[in-house]
Amino acid sequence: MSQLDKVLDHIDANLDASLERLFAFLRIASISTDPAHAQDCRRAAEHVKAELDGLGFAAEVHATPGHPVVLGHQQGEGKPSVLFYGHYDVQPVDPLDLWTNPPFEPRIETLADGSKVIRARGAADDKGQILTFLEAVRAWKAVTGDLPVNVSVLIEGEEEVGSVNLPAFVDANLDRLRADAVLVCDTNQWDADTPAITTGLRGLVHDEIIIRTADRDLHSGLFGGAAQNAIQVLAGVIAALRDGEGRITIPGFYDGVPEIPEEVREQWRGLGLDARTFLGPVGLSEPAGEKDRYVIEQIQSRPAFDINGIIGGYTGEGSKTVIPAQARAKITFRLVGEQNPVKVRDAFRAYVRSLIPADASVTFGAGDGAGAVSVPLDSPLLAKAAGALRDEWNKPPVTIGGGGSIPIIATFQNRLGATPLLVGFGLEDDRIHSPNEKYSLTNFHKGTRSWARILQALAE
Amino acid sequence: MSQLDKVLDHIDANLDASLERLFAFLRIASISTDPAHAQDCRRAAEHVKAELDGLGFAAEVHATPGHPVVLGHQQGEGKPSVLFYGHYDVQPVDPLDLWTNPPFEPRIETLADGSKVIRARGAADDKGQILTFLEAVRAWKAVTGDLPVNVSVLIEGEEEVGSVNLPAFVDANLDRLRADAVLVCDTNQWDADTPAITTGLRGLVHDEIIIRTADRDLHSGLFGGAAQNAIQVLAGVIAALRDGEGRITIPGFYDGVPEIPEEVREQWRGLGLDARTFLGPVGLSEPAGEKDRYVIEQIQSRPAFDINGIIGGYTGEGSKTVIPAQARAKITFRLVGEQNPVKVRDAFRAYVRSLIPADASVTFGAGDGAGAVSVPLDSPLLAKAAGALRDEWNKPPVTIGGGGSIPIIATFQNRLGATPLLVGFGLEDDRIHSPNEKYSLTNFHKGTRSWARILQALAE
Repeated sequence: MSQLDKVLDHIDANLDASLERLFAFLRIASISTDPAHAQDCRRAAEHVKAELDGLGFAAEVHATPGHPVVLGHQQGEGKPSVLFYGHYDVQPVDPLDLWTNPPFEPRIETLADGSKVIRARGAADDKGQILTFLEAVRAWKAVTGDLPVNVSVLIEGEEEVGSVNLPAFVDANLDRLRADAVLVCDTNQWDADTPAITTGLRGLVHDEIIIRTADRDLHSGLFGGAAQNAIQVLAGVIAALRDGEGRITIPGFYDGVPEIPEEVREQWRGLGLDARTFLGPVGLSEPAGEKDRYVIEQIQSRPAFDINGIIGGYTGEGSKTVIPAQARAKITFRLVGEQNPVKVRDAFRAYVRSLIPADASVTFGAGDGAGAVSVPLDSPLLAKAAGALRDEWNKPPVTIGGGGSIPIIATFQNRLGATPLLVGFGLEDDRIHSPNEKYSLTNFHKGTRSWARILQALAE
Repeated sequence: MSQLDKVLDHIDANLDASLERLFAFLRIASISTDPAHAQDCRRAAEHVKAELDGLGFAAEVHATPGHPVVLGHQQGEGKPSVLFYGHYDVQPVDPLDLWTNPPFEPRIETLADGSKVIRARGAADDKGQILTFLEAVRAWKAVTGDLPVNVSVLIEGEEEVGSVNLPAFVDANLDRLRADAVLVCDTNQWDADTPAITTGLRGLVHDEIIIRTADRDLHSGLFGGAAQNAIQVLAGVIAALRDGEGRITIPGFYDGVPEIPEEVREQWRGLGLDARTFLGPVGLSEPAGEKDRYVIEQIQSRPAFDINGIIGGYTGEGSKTVIPAQARAKITFRLVGEQNPVKVRDAFRAYVRSLIPADASVTFGAGDGAGAVSVPLDSPLLAKAAGALRDEWNKPPVTIGGGGSIPIIATFQNRLGATPLLVGFGLEDDRIHSPNEKYSLTNFHKGTRSWARILQALAE
């Protein structure tokens, strides 16, 4: 029996204990965007540090102007070095009444098809995925007392709010973070049976539009028909940001968006991912983006714009005949190719300003962001990981162009010169960022086994 | 000294006691739209009944399917009969943090210009205005032991939610409500120095637009660009309801809207109410309605459409990269002339349905409403009231075409055949329906004196 086989057996035999550890992590309500949960974020960081210490890492919790960062090392001579990156923070849980169990009381559920899932906020994004790696490390240590490669682990607490303080932390700790590869487990598989390596990630710009009109809410009986209505102005702005063909109308927005080579489009067509297959499981049928693009292009190789939230005026029970003096909307852009996040934000704001009528004014939110990332397809790292994944899943991984954004990856690439290796075991129906988030129990188990294999492959 | 002079002196001498009674009424948080305040509405009704009993009325609290109605009578032989109508319910108070004092803890404030105001929710709309009438009644009773006319008083608790149960109550009590005139004190003066009689009220239609897209909120990283966004759809609908000229685009919407005679337009022009005069005090400058109409036309003789509130997606602190599956907006129409509220509602809904794209659906709210009201300008009642107001204010009242809506007035006109007499002492800057509602102390005092005069004039 090879060392690797012993490690894999150890993982199989200790799955329940792995789950116990995951549940303890999931019980911490580390919602980074909500100041009321700052103490929970601190607890999550301390929890990660304790886990790393237990695995023989030299780990520390580092304060930042926001939530703390945890960094640990396990180094030996003459081995390649990898940096594993993940985040202990999670998305908010509202609307809470749509959850079938309390979001921070994890449990195993058996679905109608007999499959088992781990149900909790953070199960897939990203605590469950982090633990696939740490449990693989644990098995290697338990079986061999060592690791095939040198491993540093960096777990932050602000990924869900744009990793605002991490670039400065990276800059201040370049020597301690130096590695040949950055391993990230915060992405999806192709489908439940098919692993994937993500080689492109869309960039992200967050902003908020705040419209103000009169100096107070007005009575619509007295002023209706004459006074500017902040919601009407905001709706007009939002409607004008997209044309009838699904294109974003901001001047210069598509600058730096590359055309996908025809052979890649061909390959995508061959995957059989039509609109119904992709959108059907969430109750949709027709791609809402640019009309001349396949659904897979819309989500992988084209930029996107979304309104994430809107509020203004009276939103309580019943009715109130008010002309609201303020309305606001949270928005995000997904960027691809060479689209520059600062240029996109500035062009967006200039265009919105040009749409504001008399008696209305606009201000904006933080407007932070990061550009898109792409990993060279010819990297030897990719070949090694692909082999390991094929061994575990009995089929080769699909190379996917991206979709979600992990803003810090660009920083790792630029500052550390490390090649990102993005392997994750999430599924599209995991409901991350929604009520009833889940993570497949099979994927947690086989994900852990996959990392055990990848760690060995990277040493070869 | 005439009887009337004695009554007016009595009002002057007892102003502090009148204010005490008003404050006791204002302390009751009778927010009709919020089920959490149902008990407060009940308390407000009992409070009104006790006041009426104390004034020698035979008063009763009548249950309805909603909040109760209070009805009291004081009848003698051979006198004209009037029915006074008002409402004890008030608007919600949010956003609470914009109030400078707790909304149900009334107090007198001295403004920068030295004038005094009564600050509380309901101070102007409608508790303060109700008490101008009841305190006039009190003075007549105290000085003469009688009233110049027979008076019935009907105070309801659902005006702010469309008086949904009052028509049935009126139908069931026609004989007890019969009167020559319906007196209403829920309107404004022309300005601080000039009284007004309102002879037209715009109708009102309430509705809500609820857009649904996917069967759950989606992650904008995975689905952004491909999945329909409920807020985007809602914004598109709202934007499409109005054209670039400020006209409402619903087919047939303007059916039944009369053109104002040129001589009336001339008269309005002569009033010197330009856009800046009307809109300046609330921080606006340019009429937002139909571009070819004067501001006074926009608010008095033209229909209007407003979005009163909107909500969808993530509206908490920070950001959340979600594609919302639901968004909703509360809306109202103000109607004029012969516009039919049911036809307007149905045309609105049909038009909205025609705007809904693939993968989105729409449902609506209650959609209730009432048509516009106009009072004949040649009624002798108007002449009597105008004389009384002129005597009090030393200038004749302006006859104004309306603006706000009091849905039940049409019912009184149609079912009771009574002429409505709408006299109120509110001011445009009273912030009714907004934080920091107030009522001028001078207007409370002179309003009470005005009703004392009108009661005598109506007996002549």
